[in-house]
Amino acid sequence: MESKAVPHKDDKDKLIKYFSVEIDNMLRWLASFGAEPDGGVTRLLYSEAWKKAQQALYGKMKQFGLTPEFDDVGNLFGRLQGTEVRPKAILTGSHIDTVKNGGRYDGAFGIVAAIIALRYLKDKYGVPKRTLEAVSLCEEEGSRFPVTYWGSGSMTGHHDFGKITSLKDDQGIYFQKAMATAGFGPHTHRSSRRSDIGAFIELHVEQGMVLERTGGTIGIVNAIVGQKRFTFEVTGQANHAGTTPMPWRKDAMNGASAMIQFLYETAGMRGEPLVATVGKLEAEPNIANVIPGRVTFTADIRHPDQAALDDFCRVVSIRFREIAQERGLELQTSMWMDEQPVCMHKGLSERIRSVSEACGIPCVQMVSGAGHDAQMFQPCFPTALIFVPSRLGISHSPDEYTAPEDLAAGTVVLTKMLYLLGYQEEDV
Amino acid sequence: MESKAVPHKDDKDKLIKYFSVEIDNMLRWLASFGAEPDGGVTRLLYSEAWKKAQQALYGKMKQFGLTPEFDDVGNLFGRLQGTEVRPKAILTGSHIDTVKNGGRYDGAFGIVAAIIALRYLKDKYGVPKRTLEAVSLCEEEGSRFPVTYWGSGSMTGHHDFGKITSLKDDQGIYFQKAMATAGFGPHTHRSSRRSDIGAFIELHVEQGMVLERTGGTIGIVNAIVGQKRFTFEVTGQANHAGTTPMPWRKDAMNGASAMIQFLYETAGMRGEPLVATVGKLEAEPNIANVIPGRVTFTADIRHPDQAALDDFCRVVSIRFREIAQERGLELQTSMWMDEQPVCMHKGLSERIRSVSEACGIPCVQMVSGAGHDAQMFQPCFPTALIFVPSRLGISHSPDEYTAPEDLAAGTVVLTKMLYLLGYQEEDV
Repeated sequence: MESKAVPHKDDKDKLIKYFSVEIDNMLRWLASFGAEPDGGVTRLLYSEAWKKAQQALYGKMKQFGLTPEFDDVGNLFGRLQGTEVRPKAILTGSHIDTVKNGGRYDGAFGIVAAIIALRYLKDKYGVPKRTLEAVSLCEEEGSRFPVTYWGSGSMTGHHDFGKITSLKDDQGIYFQKAMATAGFGPHTHRSSRRSDIGAFIELHVEQGMVLERTGGTIGIVNAIVGQKRFTFEVTGQANHAGTTPMPWRKDAMNGASAMIQFLYETAGMRGEPLVATVGKLEAEPNIANVIPGRVTFTADIRHPDQAALDDFCRVVSIRFREIAQERGLELQTSMWMDEQPVCMHKGLSERIRSVSEACGIPCVQMVSGAGHDAQMFQPCFPTALIFVPSRLGISHSPDEYTAPEDLAAGTVVLTKMLYLLGYQEEDV
Repeated sequence: MESKAVPHKDDKDKLIKYFSVEIDNMLRWLASFGAEPDGGVTRLLYSEAWKKAQQALYGKMKQFGLTPEFDDVGNLFGRLQGTEVRPKAILTGSHIDTVKNGGRYDGAFGIVAAIIALRYLKDKYGVPKRTLEAVSLCEEEGSRFPVTYWGSGSMTGHHDFGKITSLKDDQGIYFQKAMATAGFGPHTHRSSRRSDIGAFIELHVEQGMVLERTGGTIGIVNAIVGQKRFTFEVTGQANHAGTTPMPWRKDAMNGASAMIQFLYETAGMRGEPLVATVGKLEAEPNIANVIPGRVTFTADIRHPDQAALDDFCRVVSIRFREIAQERGLELQTSMWMDEQPVCMHKGLSERIRSVSEACGIPCVQMVSGAGHDAQMFQPCFPTALIFVPSRLGISHSPDEYTAPEDLAAGTVVLTKMLYLLGYQEEDV
């Protein structure tokens, strides 16, 4: 990858043209680590592809004039030291890990934009007053081990090494073993905990259709939804589909489908921004001519308002129990995810809106229906989350795509924000 | 297995005591061919266990004074030649094959009862006027190859060798190859087609709860239900469960659960004897946080009245298409089973009722919700189907059980019917 000459004016159109090429090139380069034959990318935490990607980024940061450093869990920072003795740095970036056979934008874009923005600012304006850091967070997706936000959570104290001792991947490899194999673990590098961050801005692909459908180029996220995930196990009695009269049946499928319909109908009545999904369903014995004795299904419920989320789940839960009782079925409920909604920092988000508007980049305020590292940081320091459009809303797929000019528009806004905070020393 | 002395009076209680022991012993012996560790039985068509069972029955028939003979497909007949030149024989028996890990009564009971009844009649009354035959039909369940009633259907011309040339089992073994390995196939034995049968009586376990719940010892089947089986494929669009607002979704699970609820609610309104079952359902990609892009489910619909069956399926089909359209989903429907209801022979069934009542054995007229070999024969010659109770209605399971005295009561009625038809030469 050869960089073009840096344009020496902050002209938006020139900047977009410049960033478009730079970012596209660097995303293609980064996607070569963990490349799948069909164009997808697989970079699971602490895998060989993951390690090579982080090492390559280490080299790239150095080449770009940033000071690279790993922490104990494998987060990689590229520091542009400020001239003034201000204790708290401005951080920007996203996660380097992917889902299995994911796209080349999810997470990677936020890292690439951060590094390219910092290089641009350094080349153009020299050393900032306030320290700026780019970060390639080690893990967000939870695709290898049953833990999410391992990178950002380790920085804030939400996660620590005590939490992962019993975790194994699909191959039975322990988390600690995988981490050690990749060269990380307690006291291998700098401690992950950080108390010297003043703000965090994450740039990410939307992974939804809101920007595409509303014509926004920039999405300013005012809240990340809270989400609860449940597994419902409906137990009846398996029996012969021909010889068991209907009134004598305990048909788990009958109960499950009534519950699922109630869930969807109630979600429809509540309206946006609530979303409810039954993504997974397993019937037993799952044979055409046998009445299902057991049906197990999941429900994924999200809302940016905690009270509205709680109320919907309560109403659903009460009616599910009634449906089971009416049909002589048993119902087991387990909630295995319960994340609270997080509101992004109002002042920071408002500043981003002003910057976008000043540049003439159309922006939309929106809710994020997916979780992001930003939600780990916001409780600890001012945090903002900026989206760029995803074509057809497709993500977690080799078909994930964002147009280079949209990637560049997001990077322009990020760069201008970093300039305001780092060089003009505006307070957050 | 040692037989007890044959009781020399037709006293019902003595006969029941005698048959109870004989049948229980012989069923245990037959279950040793294909015995599973947990008490179940697996005798798939043309398997080693199947072959050993048929060969053992051949020996048993010979030992009992019947003339054994195989036909080309592996049906085994035990003939008790009549003295008078009457062209048509009276046939009784059932199928020797089982489902995977089935019970020791399904099919086997009808064969064992036939052989024991014929031996009793021969020992007590000598040679009949009209020829009596016991049959161990080679296949009914469709558990190995995708064909059912291969034994009975080959006798009536419903099936022939041309039909099975492309069929393979789960292991990829061709039907013809499996048949040849077991020693059967075209011109290996007597041709399977029969035009010399005057009547057929099948004794079978109910595989349902009707007799147990109504207190009947004998169920006289007046009709076997017609059944249609469908696969419905609902296609929408897989998408992110968090970032896709509800109004923009094409959620295949939402459509499928609405269809299934409509099916069950409509079936409930129609009432007995209709039965409807969604036994199998597969969602894709079947991940908790992804909106299902495709849901495929089966429907098994049965009714003894063709018009009622057709009408229900028509109503369901129309509404399913509407549900799909309302939600922007595609619906593919395939009907892969369409069996017409079959009414058993009225005169023969009436005679069975008289015999049962004369013996003081409580009998119930009922519908069979499951298919049986009898439905293949009835269109060709007078046929009757007699049920005995199944404990808790359990079948196709190692837990299948019928009390020995109930097995014996059914065998008493069969024996008396065979006496009337074979020795007293009553017309059917």
